[in-house]
Amino acid sequence: MSVLHAPTIDLDRLLWRIGALAAIGDTGDGGACRLALTDDDRVGRELVAAWMDELDMRVEVDAIGNIRGTWPAEAQDPPVMMGSHIDTVRTGGILDGNLGVLAGLEVVETIAASGRSIERPLCVAVFTDEEGARYPPDMLGSLAFVGGIDLEAALGTVGIDGSVLGEELDRIGFAGAFPCPGPVPHSYVELHIEQGPVLEADGITIGAVTGVQGISWQEVVIRGQSNHAGTTPMSHRHDAGYAAGAVTTFVRDMALEMGGSQVATVGRISLIPDLVNVVANTATLTVDLRNTDGPSLAEAERRLSGFLDELAQAEGVTIETRSLAEFDPVDFDPDIVDLVERTAGALGHTVSRMPSGAGHDAQMLARVCPTGMVFVPSIAGISHNPAEATDRDDLGAGAAVLLGVVSELVGLR
Amino acid sequence: MSVLHAPTIDLDRLLWRIGALAAIGDTGDGGACRLALTDDDRVGRELVAAWMDELDMRVEVDAIGNIRGTWPAEAQDPPVMMGSHIDTVRTGGILDGNLGVLAGLEVVETIAASGRSIERPLCVAVFTDEEGARYPPDMLGSLAFVGGIDLEAALGTVGIDGSVLGEELDRIGFAGAFPCPGPVPHSYVELHIEQGPVLEADGITIGAVTGVQGISWQEVVIRGQSNHAGTTPMSHRHDAGYAAGAVTTFVRDMALEMGGSQVATVGRISLIPDLVNVVANTATLTVDLRNTDGPSLAEAERRLSGFLDELAQAEGVTIETRSLAEFDPVDFDPDIVDLVERTAGALGHTVSRMPSGAGHDAQMLARVCPTGMVFVPSIAGISHNPAEATDRDDLGAGAAVLLGVVSELVGLR
Repeated sequence: MSVLHAPTIDLDRLLWRIGALAAIGDTGDGGACRLALTDDDRVGRELVAAWMDELDMRVEVDAIGNIRGTWPAEAQDPPVMMGSHIDTVRTGGILDGNLGVLAGLEVVETIAASGRSIERPLCVAVFTDEEGARYPPDMLGSLAFVGGIDLEAALGTVGIDGSVLGEELDRIGFAGAFPCPGPVPHSYVELHIEQGPVLEADGITIGAVTGVQGISWQEVVIRGQSNHAGTTPMSHRHDAGYAAGAVTTFVRDMALEMGGSQVATVGRISLIPDLVNVVANTATLTVDLRNTDGPSLAEAERRLSGFLDELAQAEGVTIETRSLAEFDPVDFDPDIVDLVERTAGALGHTVSRMPSGAGHDAQMLARVCPTGMVFVPSIAGISHNPAEATDRDDLGAGAAVLLGVVSELVGLR
Repeated sequence: MSVLHAPTIDLDRLLWRIGALAAIGDTGDGGACRLALTDDDRVGRELVAAWMDELDMRVEVDAIGNIRGTWPAEAQDPPVMMGSHIDTVRTGGILDGNLGVLAGLEVVETIAASGRSIERPLCVAVFTDEEGARYPPDMLGSLAFVGGIDLEAALGTVGIDGSVLGEELDRIGFAGAFPCPGPVPHSYVELHIEQGPVLEADGITIGAVTGVQGISWQEVVIRGQSNHAGTTPMSHRHDAGYAAGAVTTFVRDMALEMGGSQVATVGRISLIPDLVNVVANTATLTVDLRNTDGPSLAEAERRLSGFLDELAQAEGVTIETRSLAEFDPVDFDPDIVDLVERTAGALGHTVSRMPSGAGHDAQMLARVCPTGMVFVPSIAGISHNPAEATDRDDLGAGAAVLLGVVSELVGLR
């Protein structure tokens, strides 16, 4: 198929759907709040399912609430799947997740309207609870879809509000009849905003996502001794606050020294008793380490562990760590990464290979089928925030690349 | 007067008074809570005033609620004043402040019982609101006594519970008739627990306090930019959390490098949004700097300020500072420091000259008359805590040194 004669997406129609979905759970400040399995999530799901129905797709809901729309409706072969999620964090923007789902519908509508033939079916998936903001862990629906978590365990997840996932799924009418894990797709392609500043800073329109960084989250609890900040000489101190500062600067220096994709963040620090004139006896902080390379991530964890041992010894404090999350890096399918890069170039867009720093449903699908992602720039790198935004032209470029990639995968003629 | 024939204090009687006062506001865990001008403070004041009365002292209450007991009752010459405070922090111990007041009564009772002559009168003072735990600033009563704060301003102080100091003083019946500022004493000597670990660590019984450290408290607010901890490369960050860690380690390294009496503490840190996977946009922390040497303290402040400027530049963050407290160092009277040291030695106690890291009423009295302090060890350096304690023998040694010093100052014959 020549790009010159390819069907083209209708950007206004895509933006209209994005706006219509954003009106559900509208927070009044440019953002949307549809925490997973709330009434607002239910209404959003019903809207997307109605659109699938209008597009003559076969709509199926599985036991964890994932929605799949297949086109043509009668198709049974493994489809080329697009999709993402429509649940949001509490201070959500209108693009995160939603873009991947609605651009998927736009691709289906465009291909259907083209009248051309395809060799395998299309599918758009809406995965349950990708954010994990109400029910940890994140990407729960796609994890269940690929068989990565026991269904009963997933249904029993207790939310931050004390609710039980399975009960809320029943309540909103999305405990579906279709089995989970579900049927393995032919391939999976997800369009998503970058949620970081790299594309914008580099002046690039399309990210050909090579994989997802491995993640290591640890909680570090440092216990020293409370003392009067005036009467206690520096040499007599066991200062948990100082030790917290030392960990914070260590992980940053380590990430800079390791280079590559290594990032390190101390996002939470709390001191006890948290008084201006008292040396802290306890500090609790979190360390978020990420790297696209598994061995490098393990090396970062080892170096941190060694530093904590030395620090405990030097300061006369005790340090305990607890793993909060641990995900290995995921590599996407090289052929699909190539296809994304080639398609973007053929459409005249600047394109760059890049890893994803955030987790996405695509990393779960990568366990079972050839998978890739398309990134578009986030203005100022802002996401999970009502100010989350992407230029109109970039949204159009992303949807066009998704259409081109999927056209190739379905064998559009 | 020869030490060999000197009167001696009755340690059991002193300990009994300490125990009786500690029963008021007893927290049940070894501590006491008598926040300034509460009903428990009132009952404690009434008990101490009753003891003064039993000792035939002339009891006078001034306009800020400071209590003075003078012996002999009819004496009018400037007295040798002892004293401290009996208000506590919320988690107070039973010695902080109380020891100085009750050892003063013990000295009066011992000298009175000795039948010897004195050249000038004795006085024991109980200063209002030394802790500042209910009404900031601390040492408010002694500050008013020496004319360091306008009386009306002091009476108008609003407490942490919204109460007004002058109204509470009226309510508990301690808005006295005597003028404030009050009459200048001949001299002032205060016995106090060290509230730090130095004497215990060095195996010394008596501290001859040379003065009080200067104090500089600053609040530091660092504003950077919130970003996703996974998707934001290290080079794109403006991480307020990292900057807070860098300040914390800087002030510690600076204090160690400056040496001498310089101490530096970051006791409070809070991050916004305080999430494991978000680079903090705002960090608020406090820096407590103290030094007995004024120019060195000013140098520490300058070095911190220079570091903050460099850090703001390097990290692309803004940093604002606000002074929370600023007290110049206080030097005690060299003759009284010598007298404390000599008296302790003559009584066979180990003694060491040392600065006070904490503030005390003595530093206010030092503005108007020759002043000194006697420190006794704090077990494990613990204070402002129900576990606050001092060995019985050390309490006896401290009271004996106070008696010896005061005997010299009053010209006991």
